[in-house]
Amino acid sequence: MILRPRPGAFALLFALRGSIVPRIAGRLCVVAALSTLLTVADLSHPHLFVQVPAAPFTFMGLALSIFLGFRTSTCYARWWEARRLWGRLIAAARDLARDAGALFPNEAALRRRLLYRVAGFAQGLAAQLRGEDVAAALRPWLPVPEAAALGTLRNPLQAALRACAADLAACRAEGRIGEVLYVRLDGHLSALTEAQTGCEGIRNTPTPFAYWLLLNRTAWLFCLLLPFGFVGSLGLATPVVVIILAYTFFGLDELADELEDPFGRAANDLPLDALARMVEIELREALGEAELPEPMRPDARFVLL
Amino acid sequence: MILRPRPGAFALLFALRGSIVPRIAGRLCVVAALSTLLTVADLSHPHLFVQVPAAPFTFMGLALSIFLGFRTSTCYARWWEARRLWGRLIAAARDLARDAGALFPNEAALRRRLLYRVAGFAQGLAAQLRGEDVAAALRPWLPVPEAAALGTLRNPLQAALRACAADLAACRAEGRIGEVLYVRLDGHLSALTEAQTGCEGIRNTPTPFAYWLLLNRTAWLFCLLLPFGFVGSLGLATPVVVIILAYTFFGLDELADELEDPFGRAANDLPLDALARMVEIELREALGEAELPEPMRPDARFVLL
Amino acid sequence: MILRPRPGAFALLFALRGSIVPRIAGRLCVVAALSTLLTVADLSHPHLFVQVPAAPFTFMGLALSIFLGFRTSTCYARWWEARRLWGRLIAAARDLARDAGALFPNEAALRRRLLYRVAGFAQGLAAQLRGEDVAAALRPWLPVPEAAALGTLRNPLQAALRACAADLAACRAEGRIGEVLYVRLDGHLSALTEAQTGCEGIRNTPTPFAYWLLLNRTAWLFCLLLPFGFVGSLGLATPVVVIILAYTFFGLDELADELEDPFGRAANDLPLDALARMVEIELREALGEAELPEPMRPDARFVLL
Amino acid sequence: MILRPRPGAFALLFALRGSIVPRIAGRLCVVAALSTLLTVADLSHPHLFVQVPAAPFTFMGLALSIFLGFRTSTCYARWWEARRLWGRLIAAARDLARDAGALFPNEAALRRRLLYRVAGFAQGLAAQLRGEDVAAALRPWLPVPEAAALGTLRNPLQAALRACAADLAACRAEGRIGEVLYVRLDGHLSALTEAQTGCEGIRNTPTPFAYWLLLNRTAWLFCLLLPFGFVGSLGLATPVVVIILAYTFFGLDELADELEDPFGRAANDLPLDALARMVEIELREALGEAELPEPMRPDARFVLL
Amino acid sequence: MILRPRPGAFALLFALRGSIVPRIAGRLCVVAALSTLLTVADLSHPHLFVQVPAAPFTFMGLALSIFLGFRTSTCYARWWEARRLWGRLIAAARDLARDAGALFPNEAALRRRLLYRVAGFAQGLAAQLRGEDVAAALRPWLPVPEAAALGTLRNPLQAALRACAADLAACRAEGRIGEVLYVRLDGHLSALTEAQTGCEGIRNTPTPFAYWLLLNRTAWLFCLLLPFGFVGSLGLATPVVVIILAYTFFGLDELADELEDPFGRAANDLPLDALARMVEIELREALGEAELPEPMRPDARFVLL
Repeated sequence: MILRPRPGAFALLFALRGSIVPRIAGRLCVVAALSTLLTVADLSHPHLFVQVPAAPFTFMGLALSIFLGFRTSTCYARWWEARRLWGRLIAAARDLARDAGALFPNEAALRRRLLYRVAGFAQGLAAQLRGEDVAAALRPWLPVPEAAALGTLRNPLQAALRACAADLAACRAEGRIGEVLYVRLDGHLSALTEAQTGCEGIRNTPTPFAYWLLLNRTAWLFCLLLPFGFVGSLGLATPVVVIILAYTFFGLDELADELEDPFGRAANDLPLDALARMVEIELREALGEAELPEPMRPDARFVLL
Repeated sequence: MILRPRPGAFALLFALRGSIVPRIAGRLCVVAALSTLLTVADLSHPHLFVQVPAAPFTFMGLALSIFLGFRTSTCYARWWEARRLWGRLIAAARDLARDAGALFPNEAALRRRLLYRVAGFAQGLAAQLRGEDVAAALRPWLPVPEAAALGTLRNPLQAALRACAADLAACRAEGRIGEVLYVRLDGHLSALTEAQTGCEGIRNTPTPFAYWLLLNRTAWLFCLLLPFGFVGSLGLATPVVVIILAYTFFGLDELADELEDPFGRAANDLPLDALARMVEIELREALGEAELPEPMRPDARFVLL
Repeated sequence: MILRPRPGAFALLFALRGSIVPRIAGRLCVVAALSTLLTVADLSHPHLFVQVPAAPFTFMGLALSIFLGFRTSTCYARWWEARRLWGRLIAAARDLARDAGALFPNEAALRRRLLYRVAGFAQGLAAQLRGEDVAAALRPWLPVPEAAALGTLRNPLQAALRACAADLAACRAEGRIGEVLYVRLDGHLSALTEAQTGCEGIRNTPTPFAYWLLLNRTAWLFCLLLPFGFVGSLGLATPVVVIILAYTFFGLDELADELEDPFGRAANDLPLDALARMVEIELREALGEAELPEPMRPDARFVLL
Repeated sequence: MILRPRPGAFALLFALRGSIVPRIAGRLCVVAALSTLLTVADLSHPHLFVQVPAAPFTFMGLALSIFLGFRTSTCYARWWEARRLWGRLIAAARDLARDAGALFPNEAALRRRLLYRVAGFAQGLAAQLRGEDVAAALRPWLPVPEAAALGTLRNPLQAALRACAADLAACRAEGRIGEVLYVRLDGHLSALTEAQTGCEGIRNTPTPFAYWLLLNRTAWLFCLLLPFGFVGSLGLATPVVVIILAYTFFGLDELADELEDPFGRAANDLPLDALARMVEIELREALGEAELPEPMRPDARFVLL
Repeated sequence: MILRPRPGAFALLFALRGSIVPRIAGRLCVVAALSTLLTVADLSHPHLFVQVPAAPFTFMGLALSIFLGFRTSTCYARWWEARRLWGRLIAAARDLARDAGALFPNEAALRRRLLYRVAGFAQGLAAQLRGEDVAAALRPWLPVPEAAALGTLRNPLQAALRACAADLAACRAEGRIGEVLYVRLDGHLSALTEAQTGCEGIRNTPTPFAYWLLLNRTAWLFCLLLPFGFVGSLGLATPVVVIILAYTFFGLDELADELEDPFGRAANDLPLDALARMVEIELREALGEAELPEPMRPDARFVLL
């Protein structure tokens, strides 16, 4: 199943999906006001800024571009690694569904218990990464006694995987599978653990704060100094040029911030709900269930959560 | 077997394979018209643009180059990762063919069933990634009852792999292979699942829309401002320089868009049909079939789909 | 469980968490003094610096930006690899907890011995990477005879893992697990070893000293030459521009130094204590202990150690 | 055994090994002729080019540098990945030699059959990647009936690996090895398959043609425009500066082309013949053969094929 | 155990550890002489260089910075990959020590034979990568008959691993371990092989010579042209600026050369002897030996070999 969150570019220009402008509007206004002010001052006092050449500002801007470029690339890498980890989760769920179906063809209850816990794991991980109630997301997918015990746990997702492993170990104890198959099936649980641990690492460990602070302050200082440097040479065009540059620089900075924690509910974050729903659909289809929920679709503004 | 889609460079210059020009021709015309207009205005009103120095525009262009460079490199990485995942699919198909031939030397029907499903998996994955009918591509390769059940499935490719696993589990139940060999053969199916999941991740998760929008708008604004900055100093050469720059910038932008989703049918996309055909040929050769289809060859314009 | 070390940006601006300014204040003062001096000299002797154009300094600064950019990106990669290795440690601890619980459900003493050693391994690794007393951190988690033998060991962490392996081998000798499960459980110990070895590699192998020296010296030379190049054209604005640039360049350099060894106790280092505590909490929860310690929280300056 | 293809730098300067100059000499002549022509014209008509400032050309050149930098880095990555894949092949051959020697100490014929096929695999892969006759390279290493059947095969290398797997499966059927050892030994064959598949992927999938075309055309346009931009300011030095720049840009472009397909016989391509010979020597040494061929050495121009 | 080769920065400035200056002193002198000469000529003939603007030189320098940046980053990546491979060797040695101790608790002779061979492997690999006598480094660690047979071997390190595997296969033949444990222990030998093969790949395959030649020549040409471009505008400051730039460019180039082959004995190379000693200490500690050698410490100039 394929989700296609990107429609035609034209429609999107109007739908404003994910545009960064609203969130940097305040900053742009400050810069626009300052540069307009300076342009007016330059017009009324023609020789006020003549002595300021553009070269030093050009150099500052290029240095900032290089550093912003690295920040953009770093934060994008985090975003993509998060997506890759969810791909690992999806692949592990598919592997487990395939193996459970092949190895326990006549034990529907066991298969359902295993796969429902994994569907709940995906829902719960999405909730955890978004700072929502993990237990509430996980509970509907667990057998009653396990669901009841969730409330007091620090890490309910791992508890769900431990319950899966206990089921598998019971099969081994009864001789239905040997050690090799236990290890194989348990390996899929390890893949789920790896996805959870990796996502938590991205969520818990933002890029170093001093790095963000340094770039953010430099971007501010640069955008505020820029009109001083350009007004002498660009005259009336100063506000236009300054606003375009501020738009690019503040926009990249803001976007890097958004991608740095890719698990939120902003337009450019990962569609965790849609991915968790996809896992649910595939696992229930593998169980042979007939009534499957619909996959999530982008909304009218083409945003998929 | 080696496919060689790149002929001599000279032939290609005429064949225009994959040239990006036709798709950015509209944009180039807009920019050319504007810069010609400004040049004419500058010639007729000599002092109109004299006061605009090139330095700020130079700086804008360099900042844009840095950001475009990162976008190009990001989208190329997606394209190459997609190719790598197809390589993983091919290697898994070869491994399965080798193991099936060695372990089930006297069970031609089982081997044929397993390998045909994998050949169908490759065809179906190509269809899915190109938004075509997966079930239609997969059906001819499946036994009749499985083919009949395809229509109602959300994820037919995984169903084909589940059928393979069921065959292997049956072998284990009959004692023909032990747990270790089941896990080994099932591991090849996991590799196929990994390839599918990875490709879907690339297909479903475009780079953040705001990133694209920011760069695209900045490229437009820059290319439209460029002639204002250069006409005062370059005079008649302005349209030439501006068009060359617009060609490079819009060209890189358009190419990054094309590489971002590497599964289409454009000239620079991955040749999925040729790769799926290659898998088919190798699997049928491993089955000992005598009449094999020909590998796909680039067409007269050197395009391989 | 999720640790969130980054509070709102506004609060942090005041809390000064991780700001790099205090540590580069001395360097900034030197540069500020020099550029003020030159500005004063330029004002009193107007034609002293006129003949020095900014272009060569611009070029030097850009070259330095490019090299600093690579250093930043290299050191950030080390920091992130260190975090990834701790993620591997956490995942291995979770896997071991799950498998021990499922495979030895009735052997609480064995399970407790295994998991306590792993909790101690995490504490000890944090201590080792910070140059503190490994044996002291590890000892409380070991059975008495093992704790007593620690003092004379060169690598106490590996000794703890060897004790785990001996326990597992004893289980195998008694027939409670077969070779396959021994290998599976021992594999988790290999993952812990891999995390330790990788972290030691980062700690023991700083980036080449000549590389650091070259960049550091170039940054100094550049920041000291900068006012000479700018004072002729920027006049009174020289100290402002020079200090902003020195702030960015010295700041990035200092931050790269801090990230290069990510295991210290500076504000931007990895929160090893908090991670080791998290491992402890999860392992004790998996053992069914009721009274768990609290996770560590960032302090009033939002610093998490 | 270590091959050292790089002699002292001084000797190489004379030996001209791998110098890119001969292959871009034509392009350099065109650029040199044009810039000389323009310089002469500028000298005879002093005010012809005065009005063309260098700034726009500087900017074009920097943008091109950034894009060329990414292409260089991309093509180098392909070259290095190809080397890494051959390293994987070598490691797999060593693993197989070690395991075959340890597990089949008294079955010299079987060991020889297995390892000779792998030596032939390395020779055949080198031939395939260079567009030479695979079957001819592989045939001498196979038992007679297999060698005779090669001619009609599409993928002879995989057929050799399938023959290895059939030998191993026969050992398992006879009870000499169990499933676990079959899987272990077959895993080495999978590593060989992975190396072959990866190398084929690099060979068959050049970087997108439009990307090459765009950079190549931009480099040409830039180098042809460059003298127009510089002649007004550099005067007689124009041809020198332009030729140096054209040398760097065309040189990097040509080198990237050479590294893109790292399997040719150019001076900077990978020394596949030497690597395949090394595999042969090591495998025959592991078989206990006394007369081993010599490793290949760089020729008088320090080129190793 | 942690080795700390980096002392306080202040001490190092005096100790000159790893400073690149001595090795580029000759080149710096050439450039210094030329720029001094030109400055003197400019002073005595004031209008000699006036007509040469700095812009083209600025552009050349930036292009060179970009290309040098990529070369630096490429060579650093090789250096770090080499360190990572040695980390893999260390982890494999620790895994083998742990498993051997747990699985063969009562067979001290076998354990000692296995681990001593691995200690010798580390010493021998260090020797091989530094072009020293492998057999001499390996011999003391082998049983007498194996040591005697070393002289005639092409790849003595692999022979040592084959002897380990033969020991393990003998254990399996005697029934002390099953196939699973053989594969597990043999897997550690595969990791050692992987480390050896990877290091040999780095050692044997320098970056393409044409790439080095192109950058080296461009750096020379640029540094020699630089004073011509700057003397007209910088006057007396020319030699200072040119020498700083030449120091940075030649320094980065030389450092990249040093990191490209990270196995030498230069100050910035990897401390292979210290790493091999560390492996020796850990393996002997795991064997229970009481008298362990001391770890290697940096010398008075803070250099660790």
